[in-house]
Amino acid sequence: MLKIKIFTIGKCKERWLEEALADYSRRLQGQMSIEWMLSKDLDKLKSLLFKESAYIALDLRGYLVSSEQFAELFWQAVTKEGARLSFVIGGAEGLPDSILEGASKRISLSPLTFTHQLTRLILVEQLYRSLEILKGSAYHK
Amino acid sequence: MLKIKIFTIGKCKERWLEEALADYSRRLQGQMSIEWMLSKDLDKLKSLLFKESAYIALDLRGYLVSSEQFAELFWQAVTKEGARLSFVIGGAEGLPDSILEGASKRISLSPLTFTHQLTRLILVEQLYRSLEILKGSAYHK
Repeated sequence: MLKIKIFTIGKCKERWLEEALADYSRRLQGQMSIEWMLSKDLDKLKSLLFKESAYIALDLRGYLVSSEQFAELFWQAVTKEGARLSFVIGGAEGLPDSILEGASKRISLSPLTFTHQLTRLILVEQLYRSLEILKGSAYHK
Repeated sequence: MLKIKIFTIGKCKERWLEEALADYSRRLQGQMSIEWMLSKDLDKLKSLLFKESAYIALDLRGYLVSSEQFAELFWQAVTKEGARLSFVIGGAEGLPDSILEGASKRISLSPLTFTHQLTRLILVEQLYRSLEILKGSAYHK
């Protein structure tokens, strides 16, 4: 089973977000586990990331990717890291250089700015979509 | 008050989506009303759009915009149309040429493919964000 960790600052405040994430967790059951590493500030986030062997940074200034490119990049990284992969989500101001410099890849989900909450859901949907793309299912036509 | 119409195919199936959209409706109260024009198929969508004086198409092949550009474009269109504005959301296969050709603008929210559900939420969040950008609030730092 694939083990994904997602690092970000803040809590899961919105009930609809909890429900949406739980929905995707159910769909991913047996294929992928997602562990949320929520830090209360940037220093805590940095110290947690320092222990990771590799992570992908989601940052407004990163490379824009299609879902197919995301799936490919995801699969390459997962293979390299032995079925493990970590992501870090930046805030509206992006991630500090100290975190970006340590990232194995820097990607952007969109030139639009999203809330933390929405970014979490978009990332999880793309992770689910990646599996469906790799399986060649009808979810991603 | 700004009157926004969003045209798309399908129903609002997910409870979390209903809750998230209701959350934004509450925040937008008194400033913007959002009317969902849900069609059961493409023919119905086309005939509904035919009656609109102008609409913005959201399509994977459209122009990628930042939140600031989205807000500017939104404000220009709203001013031109007398506080009214319509959007149409394409599916995974994008919108047919007959709908794209009639659009006053074609924009893309991301090179990533999203579900219909997520696209609705992203659009509403960007509409809310546009107002906050235009007001210069702290929501969009």
